[in-house]
Amino acid sequence: MTAKLTILGSGSALPTRDNFPSAQLLDMREKQFLIDCGEGTQIRLRQMGLKLNRLGHIFISHLHGDHCFGLIGLISSLGMLNRTADLHIHGPIGIQELFAPQLKFFCDELPFKVFFEEFDARHSVIIYEDRSLSVTTLPLRHRMPCAGFLFREKEGLRHLLRESVDFHKVPVSQFNLIRQGADYVNPEGEVISNNLLTSPPNPVVSYAYCSDTAYHEALIPLIKGIDLLYHEATFADAELIRARQTLHSTARQAARIASKAGVGRLLIGHFSARYSNKDILLKEAQEEFIQTELAVDMQTFAIESVVKSI
Amino acid sequence: MTAKLTILGSGSALPTRDNFPSAQLLDMREKQFLIDCGEGTQIRLRQMGLKLNRLGHIFISHLHGDHCFGLIGLISSLGMLNRTADLHIHGPIGIQELFAPQLKFFCDELPFKVFFEEFDARHSVIIYEDRSLSVTTLPLRHRMPCAGFLFREKEGLRHLLRESVDFHKVPVSQFNLIRQGADYVNPEGEVISNNLLTSPPNPVVSYAYCSDTAYHEALIPLIKGIDLLYHEATFADAELIRARQTLHSTARQAARIASKAGVGRLLIGHFSARYSNKDILLKEAQEEFIQTELAVDMQTFAIESVVKSI
Repeated sequence: MTAKLTILGSGSALPTRDNFPSAQLLDMREKQFLIDCGEGTQIRLRQMGLKLNRLGHIFISHLHGDHCFGLIGLISSLGMLNRTADLHIHGPIGIQELFAPQLKFFCDELPFKVFFEEFDARHSVIIYEDRSLSVTTLPLRHRMPCAGFLFREKEGLRHLLRESVDFHKVPVSQFNLIRQGADYVNPEGEVISNNLLTSPPNPVVSYAYCSDTAYHEALIPLIKGIDLLYHEATFADAELIRARQTLHSTARQAARIASKAGVGRLLIGHFSARYSNKDILLKEAQEEFIQTELAVDMQTFAIESVVKSI
Repeated sequence: MTAKLTILGSGSALPTRDNFPSAQLLDMREKQFLIDCGEGTQIRLRQMGLKLNRLGHIFISHLHGDHCFGLIGLISSLGMLNRTADLHIHGPIGIQELFAPQLKFFCDELPFKVFFEEFDARHSVIIYEDRSLSVTTLPLRHRMPCAGFLFREKEGLRHLLRESVDFHKVPVSQFNLIRQGADYVNPEGEVISNNLLTSPPNPVVSYAYCSDTAYHEALIPLIKGIDLLYHEATFADAELIRARQTLHSTARQAARIASKAGVGRLLIGHFSARYSNKDILLKEAQEEFIQTELAVDMQTFAIESVVKSI
């Protein structure tokens, strides 16, 4: 399955007709990851008919309401839908103290366990890892501790060349080893080189979510050459001073980060409610980095491996 | 201005494509009152382009999430919109303890004050009163302390008959007294009867919100003859057992309450997510009480005085 990103909310603090606050659903390697959970996240999921059967981990960037007010409602509804698998909520230090009391009161009899896993947003650390991917925090520059998240697939298994495997009479018991790259030694002692038996694994992809943040060049080495970057672009050039004051980015600044990091594609979001038409944001970003697209609520974007420009 | 009710959410615990969780905006006597505040209330308000300039009081029926998860987001956004007037949140005992910590963390620098005003949901008491209307709690029967709310307009001032007032040369200083019902005594000592100078005040209207509740006949005397009743109707007849178990009502039960109380009109809502088509609920309710309508998200209903049937 190709990795894909569904935008549940691409607005900022004040919701608009078109934009819910921040939330995204990432599908990667047969798993789902929810990134931020603004108010209405569960509503968007239900409007789109999306289920969360493969969700085990939620990542909260920071403790501003537009990034986490939907958490309690979502968890409560998952309980009513009889989810049983553990749910892990990764967030900055303090998230447990804030949400645990409401969780205890409103979701007293959940059929699953909730674990808060706190991180120190000042450092870039791996906060999730399994056989197929890892998640690393990206320290951002905002009015409170705030981290982005880098999702990086690991190289998968090689693909068996069925005809060659049959020709060489490779027993099924050897398939996994061979997919991991081993050569095959047949009963006659003959070595069949792995590259005769397999083709390369699928290309791996990487995705980084960076919201909320001021223009922050320290990000660049951490996201160098990734396939897709979501970067906040709260304001247009005309509001540069306001962007600086509030530690947000302009669309042009987001694109400059994307350009300097040589990412494959840039998706901008976290739009201020003042932009009912976002053309100006797209235009200003594309002047710096042509491979920019606007995030759109309830739209899904494929994450594809690209030839790296750096 | 005619009193009117805008449905922001008419769903129950699980949101659907059409229905947000419970929330309503009541316009009565130039004031706004928010009744319940499920997740997404502020989103619905913004989708409809509604402003809350005349909102001073929010009423929360009970502490299930689908009736209050939108509170913190709404308050937070009102802060960003630079509201300055006090905001009073009326809710059952415990609401302050649950929400005050989040309010302190997320809304630290609000430009207005928030007051929690708790009531004991077991008793019917007046919890708000001003010159033009009163709000009384209605004890309901649910899985936790839960109250409905009865909004009752007070009789307004009589209307001056401008031609008559001019003819009798009534000085402006007397207008308020006369609108309150006083006769006018002219400088010659002649008494001009009030009914020659005024016409009756606008008819008063009354509205009751009853959600969530099992079938509860104790309600009937409290809402006798009111103009509009909103009563929860979570289930159809086929789910009567489930309604009993969860202390909710069927549409037929809601209509039976309306009929026995002789209300003017009934609006049913708080629909279970299983009813994407609500015709069955309307049909079953209308078999008991013909003046039944379905609540619809983002629709506004006028509250008009009706000839009382009892």
